[in-house]
Amino acid sequence: MSGTTLPLSAEVVNLKRSVMRDLLQLAVDPEIISMAGGLPASEFLPVETLLDCIETVLARDGARAMQYSPQTEALKTWIADYMGDRGVSCTPEEIYITCGAQQGLAILSRLFLDPGQPAVIEDLTFTGIQQVTCGRGAAVRTIPIDPMNGIDVEALEAAFRQSPTPRLAVLIPNFHNPMGVCLPAEQRPRVAALTAEYGVPLIEDDPYAPVRFAGDHLPPIKAFDEAGMVFHLGSFSKILAPAVRLGWIVAPADLIPTITVLRESLDLESSTLLQRAVAEFLERGLLEPYLERVTEAYRLRCETMLEALEEHLGDLARWSRPEGGIFVWVVLPEHVDTGEMFNEAIKRRVAYIPGSVFSAGGGYRNTMRLNFSNLRPEIIREGVKRLSEIVEPLV
Amino acid sequence: MSGTTLPLSAEVVNLKRSVMRDLLQLAVDPEIISMAGGLPASEFLPVETLLDCIETVLARDGARAMQYSPQTEALKTWIADYMGDRGVSCTPEEIYITCGAQQGLAILSRLFLDPGQPAVIEDLTFTGIQQVTCGRGAAVRTIPIDPMNGIDVEALEAAFRQSPTPRLAVLIPNFHNPMGVCLPAEQRPRVAALTAEYGVPLIEDDPYAPVRFAGDHLPPIKAFDEAGMVFHLGSFSKILAPAVRLGWIVAPADLIPTITVLRESLDLESSTLLQRAVAEFLERGLLEPYLERVTEAYRLRCETMLEALEEHLGDLARWSRPEGGIFVWVVLPEHVDTGEMFNEAIKRRVAYIPGSVFSAGGGYRNTMRLNFSNLRPEIIREGVKRLSEIVEPLV
Repeated sequence: MSGTTLPLSAEVVNLKRSVMRDLLQLAVDPEIISMAGGLPASEFLPVETLLDCIETVLARDGARAMQYSPQTEALKTWIADYMGDRGVSCTPEEIYITCGAQQGLAILSRLFLDPGQPAVIEDLTFTGIQQVTCGRGAAVRTIPIDPMNGIDVEALEAAFRQSPTPRLAVLIPNFHNPMGVCLPAEQRPRVAALTAEYGVPLIEDDPYAPVRFAGDHLPPIKAFDEAGMVFHLGSFSKILAPAVRLGWIVAPADLIPTITVLRESLDLESSTLLQRAVAEFLERGLLEPYLERVTEAYRLRCETMLEALEEHLGDLARWSRPEGGIFVWVVLPEHVDTGEMFNEAIKRRVAYIPGSVFSAGGGYRNTMRLNFSNLRPEIIREGVKRLSEIVEPLV
Repeated sequence: MSGTTLPLSAEVVNLKRSVMRDLLQLAVDPEIISMAGGLPASEFLPVETLLDCIETVLARDGARAMQYSPQTEALKTWIADYMGDRGVSCTPEEIYITCGAQQGLAILSRLFLDPGQPAVIEDLTFTGIQQVTCGRGAAVRTIPIDPMNGIDVEALEAAFRQSPTPRLAVLIPNFHNPMGVCLPAEQRPRVAALTAEYGVPLIEDDPYAPVRFAGDHLPPIKAFDEAGMVFHLGSFSKILAPAVRLGWIVAPADLIPTITVLRESLDLESSTLLQRAVAEFLERGLLEPYLERVTEAYRLRCETMLEALEEHLGDLARWSRPEGGIFVWVVLPEHVDTGEMFNEAIKRRVAYIPGSVFSAGGGYRNTMRLNFSNLRPEIIREGVKRLSEIVEPLV
């Protein structure tokens, strides 16, 4: 029988019914060209090498790799070294392993933010960030974000200065989802300084940084965090494989026990088997050559998408020119509504995410997010062509 | 630098610093006989067969087993059939896959209960249940639990009747953690009826039911749930391996989309690789013979523990005589404080969990929980002997 008459919590009522999952499931229909997803390229996923790592771990560790277990030291050590290479000096004691970056968002949101308290997010942001702020009943202050320069740092300071002081801020500094933009390097020390000056904990959600195919790598905001106010989130989902379900938090060592208690209340721990297998993969030095292959493929796919946009929508649309990540942001003429035209798109066997989905405050109705990472170049060309055939009659 | 000056959320301040993890880590010291844990027997974990299942899945599904993915249908189907065998008629559409039963607790707590609202739990209960109720700021009503008969159902009804109506109740009907007792079969229809009569959603946390080594299997409370008010939680951690990080919720099909959104806000999804590998394991019919071996070992270990208690503490203590699960509950003379004597126990190289840890309302200072599942019989004998050497001088 039905449970719909049950009174649900305020928390659940606040949560936005995500269209993301529905849209992702369209990708199952082989006739639909889905640029809606956010999946890494399936054909490059390191299936055989990861299996080999699992075999090695089980041969070496046996039942210990199947039990409850403390977090894998070798994995924390690798991550600390990797963060060091990126300019964030830290020890394994400052690393906490999560089930992907989303769990980092869920944990840190609950660590600092109670319902009703103020939080700062980008005007346009990843739905998972909306879920842990708006979705938890936060009084959200949004700051403008620009496809060329990223967030408006003056607006960020204004949001920090406003009373009461925000309990949390969340930014995506690299290859922003959905906009693709990076926060310029010269702004990063300033953002770190603002978190210290106003006492606002900042989550730096950074799953895409290693997937850079042009330009120079930028140091994380965390690299400039002298006050321990920046909480960096990384993920193996986009750089290794989503099914390992592993990410990490970089946080002050004295907060790790509190983070651990909070996380244990959510799902106890991450699979020690997968932690050990990923540590084995990383220690064998397999990540770098894998990332080289993947980013080269993404460079080509992104280029193909930008060329197709130029060819088919050159007169009608503007779009981002990302140097990495997996998304292109497209702005159509003001009066086009990408939500309204979505059903027509499905009829034409093409899918995207309407930009308004990423907006906490509404707007962005004439925008869309296109994914290029999990489609072959010829499919990308055909997908953009189909899109143009829907847009053209509307303008 | 330190982050300790950061103001933390009310949620985190409410969370009890769990001693469980500290105690579990003692088990790493090979000289300490730890009866503190809750681990399944390491030597029986199906390392080779699970590896074989992982190999089969990766050979068959390739990259699809490493990607983001909808929940594995074959696993939901197996669970629905299994629940059917246990007397709970349900379809795969009523099954939701979680990262262990703890995630089921976290999800359902957030589905129904906001901070400050009333919740009903057992007077003595698993710390993970305390974390998702007391730890989330619930106004907790506790109901007495008895080592022979389980909960007091009259007290349960009184707690349901009290205004305002509770938003949630949580019970462990089989091999209660920590007390080991089962709710008698004849009480179960009554408990289900009370949830419907008073409109109180009930979480039936049931990770231990399959680990029965004496007596008859009892139908879950969910088997008598005509109103869709009982939410059943199962887990593969105790019956297969903790590192698969898989459990399930049985809930009305029309609530599954809401549960999905809530769970996606926490950590997106469970590893599709591990879901597929466990489905393969189950479809090969490997669970039943594995469970037979494990429960036979647990029967012997439990018997050994009860005999050792009789031999060494027969005049001083009373204890539960469980028909399954992995714990024995020990009650010492009134004036013995198992928390105070804990340091002495560590000096004598033996560990247990003080019973007061499981109490939301205090008390139970003269009790302890002993685990027998992950210790060989001769170690159990030595462990109980060491315990008796600490207790004897105190009485």
